[in-house]
Amino acid sequence: MNPINLQEKFAQFSEHWSPKVVGELNGQHIKLAKFQGEFVWHKHDEEDELFFVVNGSFVMEFRDKNVLLNEGEFLIVPKGVEHRPVATEEVWVMLFEPASTLNTGDTINELTKFELEKL
Amino acid sequence: MNPINLQEKFAQFSEHWSPKVVGELNGQHIKLAKFQGEFVWHKHDEEDELFFVVNGSFVMEFRDKNVLLNEGEFLIVPKGVEHRPVATEEVWVMLFEPASTLNTGDTINELTKFELEKL
Repeated sequence: MNPINLQEKFAQFSEHWSPKVVGELNGQHIKLAKFQGEFVWHKHDEEDELFFVVNGSFVMEFRDKNVLLNEGEFLIVPKGVEHRPVATEEVWVMLFEPASTLNTGDTINELTKFELEKL
Repeated sequence: MNPINLQEKFAQFSEHWSPKVVGELNGQHIKLAKFQGEFVWHKHDEEDELFFVVNGSFVMEFRDKNVLLNEGEFLIVPKGVEHRPVATEEVWVMLFEPASTLNTGDTINELTKFELEKL
């Protein structure tokens, strides 16, 4: 039971689109990720996903609209909804989602991370 | 699917120790609360609880130690562990926990909130 400092954890990695697990509770993971560029379109059939912006901003693209997310804001993407995060500049994001959640959902490609590092 | 701005939500209430639900996913709630003063000793038999400090700082007291939590830090309190938040000055906290979680856990008193407002 030690406090987790987000800035310290974010300072420990630089790669994009590679979520790190920094906490676990009730079968859910707290993950930190740095986004930059365009991710892949995907959905999660069984998991809702929360994105909280710690630093910067990004756009969550949906098939029918785009949602801009700024620092200090979060967005919940319900299961089954296709989405794609796009970040013009690097953004730091905290995710809250079931431990079973795969980063690319139903789209398996070179961005898929089957094993997540714990920080 | 709209972004939730924490500062805007915190501006909508002033009372202490009265969590507001601002998001729900996978059976979990995202709650915002303002703490000031000493809460009640309690534990949650079935739920782990995450406290993330958005503004200010507070001390989480345990029976065998105290943990200081500053802005930008989170702490996970495992189920079954007695704890008591104490805030010398007002602190703004975001909580992640199962929707079933009662704010005072196994201690029912005048601080217990059986119904939570949604913001």
